[in-house]
Amino acid sequence: MGVHDALSARIAERSGFRGLWASGLGISSVLGMRDANEASWSQVLAAVESMASATDVPILVDGDSGYGSFNNFRIFVRRLCRLGLAGVCIEDRLFPKENSFSASNHKLAEIDEFCGRIRAGKDSQTSDSFSIVARVEALVAGVGLDEALRRARAYHGAGADAILIHSKRKDPEEILAFARIWDNRCPLLIVPTTFWNTPASVFRTGGISAVIWANQGLRATITAFSETCAHVLAQESVSALEERIASLDELFGLLEYGELRAAERRYNDGSSFRQERRTDEFR
Amino acid sequence: MGVHDALSARIAERSGFRGLWASGLGISSVLGMRDANEASWSQVLAAVESMASATDVPILVDGDSGYGSFNNFRIFVRRLCRLGLAGVCIEDRLFPKENSFSASNHKLAEIDEFCGRIRAGKDSQTSDSFSIVARVEALVAGVGLDEALRRARAYHGAGADAILIHSKRKDPEEILAFARIWDNRCPLLIVPTTFWNTPASVFRTGGISAVIWANQGLRATITAFSETCAHVLAQESVSALEERIASLDELFGLLEYGELRAAERRYNDGSSFRQERRTDEFR
Amino acid sequence: MGVHDALSARIAERSGFRGLWASGLGISSVLGMRDANEASWSQVLAAVESMASATDVPILVDGDSGYGSFNNFRIFVRRLCRLGLAGVCIEDRLFPKENSFSASNHKLAEIDEFCGRIRAGKDSQTSDSFSIVARVEALVAGVGLDEALRRARAYHGAGADAILIHSKRKDPEEILAFARIWDNRCPLLIVPTTFWNTPASVFRTGGISAVIWANQGLRATITAFSETCAHVLAQESVSALEERIASLDELFGLLEYGELRAAERRYNDGSSFRQERRTDEFR
Amino acid sequence: MGVHDALSARIAERSGFRGLWASGLGISSVLGMRDANEASWSQVLAAVESMASATDVPILVDGDSGYGSFNNFRIFVRRLCRLGLAGVCIEDRLFPKENSFSASNHKLAEIDEFCGRIRAGKDSQTSDSFSIVARVEALVAGVGLDEALRRARAYHGAGADAILIHSKRKDPEEILAFARIWDNRCPLLIVPTTFWNTPASVFRTGGISAVIWANQGLRATITAFSETCAHVLAQESVSALEERIASLDELFGLLEYGELRAAERRYNDGSSFRQERRTDEFR
Repeated sequence: MGVHDALSARIAERSGFRGLWASGLGISSVLGMRDANEASWSQVLAAVESMASATDVPILVDGDSGYGSFNNFRIFVRRLCRLGLAGVCIEDRLFPKENSFSASNHKLAEIDEFCGRIRAGKDSQTSDSFSIVARVEALVAGVGLDEALRRARAYHGAGADAILIHSKRKDPEEILAFARIWDNRCPLLIVPTTFWNTPASVFRTGGISAVIWANQGLRATITAFSETCAHVLAQESVSALEERIASLDELFGLLEYGELRAAERRYNDGSSFRQERRTDEFR
Repeated sequence: MGVHDALSARIAERSGFRGLWASGLGISSVLGMRDANEASWSQVLAAVESMASATDVPILVDGDSGYGSFNNFRIFVRRLCRLGLAGVCIEDRLFPKENSFSASNHKLAEIDEFCGRIRAGKDSQTSDSFSIVARVEALVAGVGLDEALRRARAYHGAGADAILIHSKRKDPEEILAFARIWDNRCPLLIVPTTFWNTPASVFRTGGISAVIWANQGLRATITAFSETCAHVLAQESVSALEERIASLDELFGLLEYGELRAAERRYNDGSSFRQERRTDEFR
Repeated sequence: MGVHDALSARIAERSGFRGLWASGLGISSVLGMRDANEASWSQVLAAVESMASATDVPILVDGDSGYGSFNNFRIFVRRLCRLGLAGVCIEDRLFPKENSFSASNHKLAEIDEFCGRIRAGKDSQTSDSFSIVARVEALVAGVGLDEALRRARAYHGAGADAILIHSKRKDPEEILAFARIWDNRCPLLIVPTTFWNTPASVFRTGGISAVIWANQGLRATITAFSETCAHVLAQESVSALEERIASLDELFGLLEYGELRAAERRYNDGSSFRQERRTDEFR
Repeated sequence: MGVHDALSARIAERSGFRGLWASGLGISSVLGMRDANEASWSQVLAAVESMASATDVPILVDGDSGYGSFNNFRIFVRRLCRLGLAGVCIEDRLFPKENSFSASNHKLAEIDEFCGRIRAGKDSQTSDSFSIVARVEALVAGVGLDEALRRARAYHGAGADAILIHSKRKDPEEILAFARIWDNRCPLLIVPTTFWNTPASVFRTGGISAVIWANQGLRATITAFSETCAHVLAQESVSALEERIASLDELFGLLEYGELRAAERRYNDGSSFRQERRTDEFR
């Protein structure tokens, strides 16, 4: 499940997802920035750090194109490993990139140079279980299935642990064709943002290892927030909303306010500051 | 309107709100932290910086109790002024504080010490139009209307530009009683989280200058994100959601992706990197 | 004077410098990173924010090549204006860049693309007094005086307020030749790191507006810290050092600890926390 | 050895120190802030993160008084563990604190409350090898040896792995008296900033496990930077300095610029951006 901040990560984990996608589009959007490398790698890192602190499930980080050269990417990989993230996805484009669905043109990186980025990342990871997923943008760029396969093979050969094969068609045909030929050489991930209408069973039988619902949650929050704004402005009241939105207690439950209360008893005899309590005794 | 990140700030501005409340509960929640000064003042500052960069309307920042002593508060005020925020609200409690609706006990600051914080803040602001709002927690703490008034008068005397009188009752009676006696000595703000059922007309005629809908938007996003998660897990599909959630184009519109495209034409002849375009010419 | 953190900025200001250079080499070095865009633009921004908070003199920020495309640069410019910095210098190279004195090869940006970055920066500044300095790396890249002049003219035409003409020769001849032909079309800045042996009078009469001593201060601190380490390890004592290093009182004076004491008296009756003092009364 | 940023950490490691002290005074000073909890815990965390990234030796972090209550401290401990720091030192004072050598008054925390902070920290560490050092400020506060011992015993009982016994006397007598009675119950650390004149052999035979030279390196850099500024202003030249300060090559060596060059060959065939090299072929 795609998440965009620590709260959405916590909700997704509580809902039962066993893995999270730290969406680059999501992280930049909540920062008020466009998915065109406007947010710096260290801002992205701060965002995923808060996600990792708030959850226990593996988080795959959307690393865009690696924020520059192989050197920028390996700096990012080292920091992710230090923070305990599960893996990073890097796509075969140049810096700065633009979102796959908004870009006016779509330049791909040279295969050799991109393989250098992957190798630099693999050589720099400090945890054995860390995964690097190579995202192939060839189908999005419209250069064809053969080129997509050629790239996927090269990236896998350079050390990529999995391939994310991306498409912006409304049907899954080119993805499924890719998967057939790929024949499970390594795990395949997809992001069915445009071909959302395909049943999961098709992916399951088609050789896809994982589906990333990258931005539907974010888009649902945009609608919900917009509608709340419109309602409040029009009605000058939240009365009709109260029943339909999470209560404060639900929020407090999500973030475990009860644990803080229990910890105060354990570490502080119930007062949040010992000196306050003591002062009371003299009143 | 209460906002919790730059995206919600942008939405609220686009919806027509002429002023925003950078909610401490909201900012800490999206960081996965509890509203008990778990987020540092510099993390809050980074959040409001991104809100200010993404909007043009005035933003009043929830400054909790000022993050420590008068000295911590004035450091925060100087940074807010530098970033162009419109004002800050400080409440008469100690550090670390807990959310008014979740705290097990509710200690108030000494009046003199809190007035020192206000004066330090006013002396430190570098913009004449910057406002410091003093939040009176006396009614929440249950120490009565007289104490609330005594505190409000002292805070106003110390330089507070407005008073936020807080209550956690389900009816507005104590707020309205306060406002009657206060008699518009300076603007009064309220946060009707618990007495949400009161029509705005009551506040309007009752001497209240502004109403802050602090967390309804955030709570709506929690519901929306949770429901999306549950739906995806249950259905393994987003088909039924697509019609009900914002499209990617709406998101791109909110964050003005079109401006980036236009700027590329203006500054770059339409390619995001001149050297890429040039390379193409040789292909 | 080149500075690398807020403390060095404060020292340089106190020493009498009327303008500071926030050195990219310096900032990245104290972060333990190489001057090859390893530090993100937001890390650089945080560093210059602390410098600006600690000083009152104008600070010119070393903006490397602008951290990517025209779009990354204008984001950086907007943030600098918001923080009150005096200006930024941008050099005509690609992202990621490497330090002019360490790079193995030295690629220059295309003139048109770089002019686009300058124009985007000028169009984005929100303060009239903000300056954008274009740094010409043509001499360092070894492509000759004519190319350097051609570039400087184009950059000035695109809106650059001043030109920084860089050289890595040990003598100032090519710089002086450039200045003669440039004929004060706009102010010229230089960084005589390699041609340090030239007297300032030569620059003064040669048409140079300002000299940046970019890294000598940083390099002096490296020597001082290294010698302190060696001494402590060898002697297991600091006795011989005490007379030669700044006292704690000098440090406290630099950072105005006395002001904090005075402010405590003004805002807090001399105790750093009112509740502490009150508690005392009962002891 | 006390260090204040990643560069000083790297120098100290290269000099041969096998452990580093991330000084709170040092970190706040280079941020231009006073050692009175003006820097937030997350700013301190960012500083020690860069130190940890730049070195391989254990780093003990000066955690001041834990940045608030037990809850703030355990948040800090979790983050430190995540980043791989070796340990943290927490002192028995309230938030905000002021530097031991500059404070006008010196309030100590209640023993029970401080033990709660220690217990909360120990319960929150996620690495078995992480150490929490309790710093006893009783001697600095002038409340006597018995109180210092009473506190040290309580803190050790609460889980502290070591005790830092602090003093601001010019002789080591009270420290040595403490150590005699303590009798190696757990390791003892000292910071001989004021009693610097005592030979290390006295500490070695006196039962002290480790000596922290906390701020001498920082103070040496202040002198070096100040003298460089004065020289440049007076002489308008750096000629007389060049021989006495580290060369750029020394700085490049410290930060391993050579490794970047070698990595470019390995991952990029020697060019920092593959597309640049390719472009060249067509020139």
